[in-house]
Amino acid sequence: MLTKTEAQGTRRIPAAALRAFLVDALRACGLPQADAAIAAAAMLEADLTGSDAHGVFRLAGYVRQLQRGAINPRPSIRVLQRSPATALIDGDQGMGHVVMTYAANLAVELARAAGVGWVGARCSNHAGAGAIYAAIPLRHGMVGIYGAASSVNHMAPWGGSEPLLGTNPIAVAIPAGDEPPVVLDIATSLASNGAIRTYELEGKPMPAGWVQHRKDGSPVTDPRRIEEGTYLPMGGYKGSGLSLVIGLLAGPLNRAAFGRDIRDFAAPAGEKGNVGQFVVAFDVARFVLLDAFKAEVDRHIRDLISSHRLPGRDEIRVPGMGRAARRAERERNGVPLSASVLAQIDELAKSLDVASLSARA
Amino acid sequence: MLTKTEAQGTRRIPAAALRAFLVDALRACGLPQADAAIAAAAMLEADLTGSDAHGVFRLAGYVRQLQRGAINPRPSIRVLQRSPATALIDGDQGMGHVVMTYAANLAVELARAAGVGWVGARCSNHAGAGAIYAAIPLRHGMVGIYGAASSVNHMAPWGGSEPLLGTNPIAVAIPAGDEPPVVLDIATSLASNGAIRTYELEGKPMPAGWVQHRKDGSPVTDPRRIEEGTYLPMGGYKGSGLSLVIGLLAGPLNRAAFGRDIRDFAAPAGEKGNVGQFVVAFDVARFVLLDAFKAEVDRHIRDLISSHRLPGRDEIRVPGMGRAARRAERERNGVPLSASVLAQIDELAKSLDVASLSARA
Repeated sequence: MLTKTEAQGTRRIPAAALRAFLVDALRACGLPQADAAIAAAAMLEADLTGSDAHGVFRLAGYVRQLQRGAINPRPSIRVLQRSPATALIDGDQGMGHVVMTYAANLAVELARAAGVGWVGARCSNHAGAGAIYAAIPLRHGMVGIYGAASSVNHMAPWGGSEPLLGTNPIAVAIPAGDEPPVVLDIATSLASNGAIRTYELEGKPMPAGWVQHRKDGSPVTDPRRIEEGTYLPMGGYKGSGLSLVIGLLAGPLNRAAFGRDIRDFAAPAGEKGNVGQFVVAFDVARFVLLDAFKAEVDRHIRDLISSHRLPGRDEIRVPGMGRAARRAERERNGVPLSASVLAQIDELAKSLDVASLSARA
Repeated sequence: MLTKTEAQGTRRIPAAALRAFLVDALRACGLPQADAAIAAAAMLEADLTGSDAHGVFRLAGYVRQLQRGAINPRPSIRVLQRSPATALIDGDQGMGHVVMTYAANLAVELARAAGVGWVGARCSNHAGAGAIYAAIPLRHGMVGIYGAASSVNHMAPWGGSEPLLGTNPIAVAIPAGDEPPVVLDIATSLASNGAIRTYELEGKPMPAGWVQHRKDGSPVTDPRRIEEGTYLPMGGYKGSGLSLVIGLLAGPLNRAAFGRDIRDFAAPAGEKGNVGQFVVAFDVARFVLLDAFKAEVDRHIRDLISSHRLPGRDEIRVPGMGRAARRAERERNGVPLSASVLAQIDELAKSLDVASLSARA
């Protein structure tokens, strides 16, 4: 994974080349063209917007899961139950990106007819950055909300020491006009798994307060000892509570896994998970003219970013501004990939017998 | 407000007496019987469940607002826009408790027909504890979600020093079977306004990290100097982002106030606020048999509360357990009110020419 300052040896890969590579790699794992394109688009979007831990970086892991049958390359996504404003879908163990893109589009369809649409998914898989699915309704003048029961438990309930809760993220996307849309995408842990794994990869000590030791709650800062601890929730009991309710709404409400039923997605072959997620779309025009709403959101964003700053702060950022800026820059200049990540991806390309990313860039 | 350990002079007021007093006091301010009963029930529920800052303690403030016309005692709540699963209502400046009870019941009605119901409110007022409205759908086998754009701004956007964000709370209620329902009700600030005001009332120093000075972000711990600071969000930029998105969904989406448009509800007469809130109800049976879902939630709650604890921790609590326990205890033994709060309420009774709480208890 990349550090914030681009290390020597970092290469910029054009978005088109990255997309084509992702499609080819996923096709080589048995995905149909259409599904490969959907999953590639979701992973590329993560790379473009700066969710580097959810982009091409994850490809090797997905390929392993596809190869051992933990992810079904050719799922039949089915609507199990449908009402005017809700649907429960079964992802048939497909790639989470494919399942949740389907879910978000269905939520938009329901919201267009009913004002709001809530789609739950079961038998899904890790879908990458929640913001990608929360943002799908934006194109239709709608608010999007995404929540997930993580496919691995890293947090303990508040006061506990056993990892029975995921970092269950929530993402909310709200349309704006000339300003970038407001897009919040947060794990309910204080530090996301991606951030913690970055320290692990780079072998540098983590800030105290991110991970606590299971034995006594003391800070774990050595990234080699992450497994001895649990991640701390954001805001103490509040983050633990948020993780719990998001997990119940994304898991058991969708007849998907939660708590002790969660199996690590890196678990050995034969163990099928049952990942649950949900997407809600809300049609803004049901309450207020879309253009008027967008103008109001613009006005409020400008009020916030131009308000008085604390000394030493360069800027006030509204969620979504950073990702919009990165997206524009990376579409222009390409997605930065470190030499080591690129080398791993080129190895993977070889094993899949597809043209390497280096050769395409 | 009460401290956790009951001070000398604390009296226990039976729930029935408290309810009757609240109804009489609100009737004396011009509320019709039915609305007085609804608002009294919501305030009593806050007192019973331990949201002491949102119960009878607030009555004097509401009475002042009713008397100066900031709250309309006889509102005509109107549905401005309605679609199969959504409704926007205008609260006509009524008491927030009345408006949001109406909203929650309408959300249930919509969800019964469409699977999910989302009701936004504008021209509402402070409604007390969000959990009360999130919990209304529980009785109908539904999940409830409540969010509000606070009627006063106590938080700055992350990096800023101007109070442009409320502590915008979110509440989520999820049905359980034999266990108490999961009910999470959190402000997006690290410490709620209620908690901070408790320190103010008791005149004791606040923990560092709750309030930061507007000038330089240094900790404000002297409760007499709260107004020189802004409340810190839970989880840093995450809580700031949550406050922002909840505020936009409860405010501008409902054509209600947000950001610079927020006027303190304690503002002088003539300044009409436009408080916005929303309630979502989700009909569990659309995805899973209600009894099966409740049994699953029970099982997961038990797994969590019986899991290994950190040393020194007495228990693992799931949100909602504390309030259920307090409710049972207070229904049995009465709501504890300190001598000073009771004296204030008795003064108020006198000014309204209704029988005092002391005389009824």
